[in-house]
Amino acid sequence: MQRLLMILLVITFPLSVIGKYLHWSDVALFAIACAAIIPLAGVMGRATESIAIHSGPKIGGLMNATFGNAVELIISLFALKQGLIGVVQASLTGSIIGNLLLVAGLSFLVGGIKFPQQKFNRTIAGTNSAMMLLGVVIALVIPAIFTATNPKISNSMSIGVSVVVLLLYLLGLFFSLYTHRNLFNYTEELEEEEAEWSMKKALLILALATAAVAFESELLVHTIETVSHELGWSEVFIGVIIVAIIGNAAEHSSAILMALRNKMDVALEIAVGSSLQIAMFVTPVLVFASLFFAEPMSLVFSWPELGAMVLSVLLINFLAQDGESNWLEGAMALGAYVIIGIGFYFL
Amino acid sequence: MQRLLMILLVITFPLSVIGKYLHWSDVALFAIACAAIIPLAGVMGRATESIAIHSGPKIGGLMNATFGNAVELIISLFALKQGLIGVVQASLTGSIIGNLLLVAGLSFLVGGIKFPQQKFNRTIAGTNSAMMLLGVVIALVIPAIFTATNPKISNSMSIGVSVVVLLLYLLGLFFSLYTHRNLFNYTEELEEEEAEWSMKKALLILALATAAVAFESELLVHTIETVSHELGWSEVFIGVIIVAIIGNAAEHSSAILMALRNKMDVALEIAVGSSLQIAMFVTPVLVFASLFFAEPMSLVFSWPELGAMVLSVLLINFLAQDGESNWLEGAMALGAYVIIGIGFYFL
Amino acid sequence: MQRLLMILLVITFPLSVIGKYLHWSDVALFAIACAAIIPLAGVMGRATESIAIHSGPKIGGLMNATFGNAVELIISLFALKQGLIGVVQASLTGSIIGNLLLVAGLSFLVGGIKFPQQKFNRTIAGTNSAMMLLGVVIALVIPAIFTATNPKISNSMSIGVSVVVLLLYLLGLFFSLYTHRNLFNYTEELEEEEAEWSMKKALLILALATAAVAFESELLVHTIETVSHELGWSEVFIGVIIVAIIGNAAEHSSAILMALRNKMDVALEIAVGSSLQIAMFVTPVLVFASLFFAEPMSLVFSWPELGAMVLSVLLINFLAQDGESNWLEGAMALGAYVIIGIGFYFL
Repeated sequence: MQRLLMILLVITFPLSVIGKYLHWSDVALFAIACAAIIPLAGVMGRATESIAIHSGPKIGGLMNATFGNAVELIISLFALKQGLIGVVQASLTGSIIGNLLLVAGLSFLVGGIKFPQQKFNRTIAGTNSAMMLLGVVIALVIPAIFTATNPKISNSMSIGVSVVVLLLYLLGLFFSLYTHRNLFNYTEELEEEEAEWSMKKALLILALATAAVAFESELLVHTIETVSHELGWSEVFIGVIIVAIIGNAAEHSSAILMALRNKMDVALEIAVGSSLQIAMFVTPVLVFASLFFAEPMSLVFSWPELGAMVLSVLLINFLAQDGESNWLEGAMALGAYVIIGIGFYFL
Repeated sequence: MQRLLMILLVITFPLSVIGKYLHWSDVALFAIACAAIIPLAGVMGRATESIAIHSGPKIGGLMNATFGNAVELIISLFALKQGLIGVVQASLTGSIIGNLLLVAGLSFLVGGIKFPQQKFNRTIAGTNSAMMLLGVVIALVIPAIFTATNPKISNSMSIGVSVVVLLLYLLGLFFSLYTHRNLFNYTEELEEEEAEWSMKKALLILALATAAVAFESELLVHTIETVSHELGWSEVFIGVIIVAIIGNAAEHSSAILMALRNKMDVALEIAVGSSLQIAMFVTPVLVFASLFFAEPMSLVFSWPELGAMVLSVLLINFLAQDGESNWLEGAMALGAYVIIGIGFYFL
Repeated sequence: MQRLLMILLVITFPLSVIGKYLHWSDVALFAIACAAIIPLAGVMGRATESIAIHSGPKIGGLMNATFGNAVELIISLFALKQGLIGVVQASLTGSIIGNLLLVAGLSFLVGGIKFPQQKFNRTIAGTNSAMMLLGVVIALVIPAIFTATNPKISNSMSIGVSVVVLLLYLLGLFFSLYTHRNLFNYTEELEEEEAEWSMKKALLILALATAAVAFESELLVHTIETVSHELGWSEVFIGVIIVAIIGNAAEHSSAILMALRNKMDVALEIAVGSSLQIAMFVTPVLVFASLFFAEPMSLVFSWPELGAMVLSVLLINFLAQDGESNWLEGAMALGAYVIIGIGFYFL
């Protein structure tokens, strides 16, 4: 698997550099950039993991919690710079529902085909459920409803709510890494694992991969309008489905691997943890960052995006609350993802 | 009870035939048709049950899952033919909320007056909760929100979503009849039961009763407009409350009987199972069938209908999630039904 | 604590009388009235508690369930008389979300700082969850959605729904005081407690405090418009945040005290019970009372108010459903309160 990804990287990265300077068609460049980002995200994830192991469980947990969605953050920053606020919001939406429905759904399905019933820790699932209700539902629905009543308050509300959400995310880290770390087996597993790379090597690889992702992200963002026009897909559909799947490919593979090893706790933590990170860390950081660009990004998403996110959170919360999963629950999550995908396709 | 129903049938069915050819008033014909459908639905249910027992648990379960709401399907097909799409959607809404709030509510209330606390299987309740969240909430809210943004996509979205929902319904049957049938005591009970009628007799009775229901349904549908006008009730109110109660009278009586025997698992399975069947089998089948009529029916329900269905699902999920019921929970479900009924009455 | 409150009362009550007749500025009078209502509400609570203990658990429970939010009721009646329907609805909203998010949130947080994990009775939490879903979500969302479709039905629907809700509240009392009183430890605790005051003295104090609250409420309501204008806060913000915090100050202190004694059951009962009382007793009583004033009050709240209430109920239900709490859950509830507060501030 990792060998295949490295081959993909060795082919696509040079191709994208060549293609850019030879002015290949935008659709080709977009496809190559997508194909290059998947292995790069994987490499960044492995480097972050090595640094986390070297740094000890607390700093390591903090690193995973902030750099875990670096690819998503980099793509979004380039899109913001380009003024593509709709694409950024669409890809944030897509990442949240993709992690909740596609990553968790595939884990439930694949794991459920192998094992008739899989169990996971209900306490963590419960805390995460409440966090998602806060970070996704309340933090996004309240600005949307209030702004619908008075559109002028959009930006001031967004900044205020972003501060609260980011603070709660940090409190959540403090909870899982300090005061209640015994509840979370993740940090303990981190201690047992061996680092793949030395600290120095991991930092170098992380820096190089980040630079390469930035290059590919710019390519992706610059070609998105033409691709949308030529393929007849809306920019929102590309953001919600295509960009989100690419940005979260690493999460998909690790979660499914864990489900196959019957470690459903870890699989669910990857899916839900990544959604929470997008909603409660990446999104507020982008709201703040956008203040330095021409057009500020608010927390006010479109109603279809909001509906998709709220229903995804509710479904996953219902599926997870009994602490058990089976293949049908996976099929339901995937079914919900397809229904939402159909909606964005036709929109 | 069954004797009384047979007497009702023997009186009302000939009366409706006579009334139709003597051109009695529409209000009278509507009332007679309603009174005839109740025992006919009961007879169809008993015949289906006999056939199911003769066919073995798997085919039997499949039969119950597809013919269980045949009356509802037949009435709806005649209404679609007549172009009464609003009435069809109203009666689907009414069947879903009626089964969830009225059938389950009466079971909780009546059972709870006899027993202080009744217990049921939480795992099945959980799976059904998630199915309802998918089949009722997600499958209907997503088309409504997306269509509100772009009305042109209503029909293409409805067909796409219907395919997904029907597929998930079939996967749910595969789950409960094959891969996880040990979780569901229903099929085992089917094996133990003795058939009321022989296979041949049951098939004959089913065919006759279906033909009679079709006759009464046509009468009902043809008189509904005049009845609405003369009694000052909107067609939506008649669909949501009157038609839905008639079409689900059989479910009401069996569920309450089971609650009185402290078999709350079976009572809840009837209520929730019937709602799921309406939402995930009857509704998509009607969407497909409507393509052969003059005007296609979409999955886009009115906001009051959607609100009523979503809140019913949420309430029943909250009531069922602890695996226990009492009379107050029954009173709450009935209270919610009355509140929704008041809404549709005044609308 | 109680000594401090008495000192506050002895200072503020005479000041408010003097200030009223010397025509001090409205902002000063508003502030003094607020400061006077807090200790008066505390005195009324203590008098009600004494009367309840003397009356035995059943009548006592009934008294607490009807007089527990007398302050809120009195303020609202004066505001209705003044035609300030928006302020009344805002303060009802504020009381519901304040009790759910602020009172429960502070209890979870303060208790959770002292104890790593606090447990409470899941059965009661479950029954209360369903009651809130019914009394807050269904009883308020259904009128809002149906009225949005047809604005003319607002008042007839409100009266009908209010009757149902009030009836269910009485059934809920019958459940907790008669048929299932063994589930609720509250009434038993009432039996063990000793009354602070004799019946006669308690009745006298209650009467005097009620009269004084009525005086202060009139002052508060008469000055609210000027205060809104001079401080640049909307009347809705004053109603949702300021009036609600003042009216529920007693609940705040007792719930937090209970949380610190690790009696999370009682703390949650105060928070959720008070919300239920506002939604299912005070609100319908005000709908009926408003029929005797110039302008009737309907159950149709604004969308921001509805959104805030629905999300508060969902969040508390998610936090409570596992029967455990910790400081992070408290921080989440408080975070949600701040997010909603930001919304009403900017609105």
